[in-house]
Amino acid sequence: MHINEIETPAVLIDMDRVEANLTRAQAYADRHGLRLRPHVKTHKLPELARRQVALGAIGVTCQKLGEAEAMADGGLADIFLPYNILGPAKLDRLAALHDRVTLSVTADNAETVDGYAGRFSPEHPLTVLVECDTGAARCGVQSPQDAVALARRIAGAPGLRFGGLMSYPPQGRTAEVNDWLGSARSALEAAELPPGTISAGGTPDLMRAAEIPVATEYRPGTYIYSDRMQVAWGHGDLGDCALTVKATVVSRPTAARAVLDAGSKALAADPVPPPFEGHGHITDYPDATITALSEEHGVVDLSRCDRRPGIGETVRIIPNHACVVTNLFDTVHLVKGDEVVGRPRITSRGKLW
Amino acid sequence: MHINEIETPAVLIDMDRVEANLTRAQAYADRHGLRLRPHVKTHKLPELARRQVALGAIGVTCQKLGEAEAMADGGLADIFLPYNILGPAKLDRLAALHDRVTLSVTADNAETVDGYAGRFSPEHPLTVLVECDTGAARCGVQSPQDAVALARRIAGAPGLRFGGLMSYPPQGRTAEVNDWLGSARSALEAAELPPGTISAGGTPDLMRAAEIPVATEYRPGTYIYSDRMQVAWGHGDLGDCALTVKATVVSRPTAARAVLDAGSKALAADPVPPPFEGHGHITDYPDATITALSEEHGVVDLSRCDRRPGIGETVRIIPNHACVVTNLFDTVHLVKGDEVVGRPRITSRGKLW
Repeated sequence: MHINEIETPAVLIDMDRVEANLTRAQAYADRHGLRLRPHVKTHKLPELARRQVALGAIGVTCQKLGEAEAMADGGLADIFLPYNILGPAKLDRLAALHDRVTLSVTADNAETVDGYAGRFSPEHPLTVLVECDTGAARCGVQSPQDAVALARRIAGAPGLRFGGLMSYPPQGRTAEVNDWLGSARSALEAAELPPGTISAGGTPDLMRAAEIPVATEYRPGTYIYSDRMQVAWGHGDLGDCALTVKATVVSRPTAARAVLDAGSKALAADPVPPPFEGHGHITDYPDATITALSEEHGVVDLSRCDRRPGIGETVRIIPNHACVVTNLFDTVHLVKGDEVVGRPRITSRGKLW
Repeated sequence: MHINEIETPAVLIDMDRVEANLTRAQAYADRHGLRLRPHVKTHKLPELARRQVALGAIGVTCQKLGEAEAMADGGLADIFLPYNILGPAKLDRLAALHDRVTLSVTADNAETVDGYAGRFSPEHPLTVLVECDTGAARCGVQSPQDAVALARRIAGAPGLRFGGLMSYPPQGRTAEVNDWLGSARSALEAAELPPGTISAGGTPDLMRAAEIPVATEYRPGTYIYSDRMQVAWGHGDLGDCALTVKATVVSRPTAARAVLDAGSKALAADPVPPPFEGHGHITDYPDATITALSEEHGVVDLSRCDRRPGIGETVRIIPNHACVVTNLFDTVHLVKGDEVVGRPRITSRGKLW
């Protein structure tokens, strides 16, 4: 099937760019002795996760149980779930997953550790890492001392094994992150709780991950497709972006305005940092700006374009944020050049719980 | 099933509020001799569309073919698809749908009209309305004169029937919209092309729709659930909002910070107009602000809250934009008080084309 035959709106994945993005990151990780554990949230496809593992990744990262279950169904054998899993129903599912794959999780509070401790047993202990807030102000214990206290609680539970430290670090503050995690490692070693794994992540700082030498593992997600947000943050350029949304110009109400059949239900409303603006980059019309989205319409300002698209013309758009786009579509088209080479269903789309 | 048993994150629909919202709007429309044709984009559920019709709506509005097909499957008999439908594959699907239901569409350009004209025949003509840009700067012809020209093209095609005018009006400019559509009606009447239907829409101005007396029909969407965006724009208050996202507090990293298991994959990143801020209203903690979303985390600032939730506590959130939330979940929970009375699959979720 030729890409011209794909009905719009649709997601196209350039597999040559995917391969280049994966290979570049794996080579960097290998060069610096860092283990890669990619986050599947970007592609949500077991076949691409298996490709990441085939290239050298030690396993995958999932953010929700449902995502992890879908990856286990897809043949992934080593899954890290860096989330506080709470409540009997989810703990039962976690236990079932633990019987199928090599599983590790995180906790950043005693309630979560106690929940794990009540559900797992010494015969098949669950590996738990302590999540650390190294400056991103999301989850995580607030100090190396708190990390030691929680590690001690984990290590003291018969059904649990202390696995190390995990952080989702703030962008561009690698030295600060390394200091935080280094202090925590020293404190843990002093407490005879050496952290087996110290896991950092985030695509923006992926190619400078070696600036956090204390980390043993890195969890990049968006690097496989990249997007305008990553490029704005300094990761590669638009030529690396593997995911595009194919759309059709359905209206040309004025000389300077086009309307696409891709709105916020296709491109998502996530904003983009400067120097970019608008809701996506139209590859054939780089001077066009997608100025407004409603659910099924993308409004394009063509006033800076010498050449302008006609009604019925299709375009390809690099979105602001690739991960949320793959959560909006049921399938993606894998393409090589102009040929569609696969059309997988996005098995972990919408796995919110 | 009690709502406490619902795993998070999940969407809950308060059916008493739905009924009140629908009844209020239908009574207003009846009082002003206006036909209602609700937009299904908000709920995406045939059973709620059927309820809208049972209360007096003349049919439904869908924005994409796939949405319309799902509504036809769900028993809706009169569907308006105000979109330029382009290309042979979509025209074939449109023709198939035309054989199943009473169907009407729009066009705002000659290419679209010519596509319809080439696909439909006098034995079973397709009704086409002219979309008019009355100030919202999305799709639509730019002047009443252009509306007449396109109406003439429709009326001149043997397989088409000119159905009237449709506009998605700009908010709060009812007088201007009425002038535009009134001029177009006069010009059409002078051209012996009287518009059978003049269709306006938009929930923000629903309860002042009578300020556009030239309109015969109104297409409200979000009014069934409402949300923070609608309330900010002056439609009702937060007590009318029927859709909430149930979420769990999974982390309390600091005294002033909570983290929810609902991020942009549950609440969507759509911004809210003033006076609101943040990414949703937590009903039990009205002074809390959801300050940041990543895909699976919602970060909450509790600094203005006297009482603060603990780890494992569940909360309910009125989102900024209800329509995009129902596009993120596979199912919703219909609730009456604390009881779940239904759990339909969202059949037209993700129907982008």
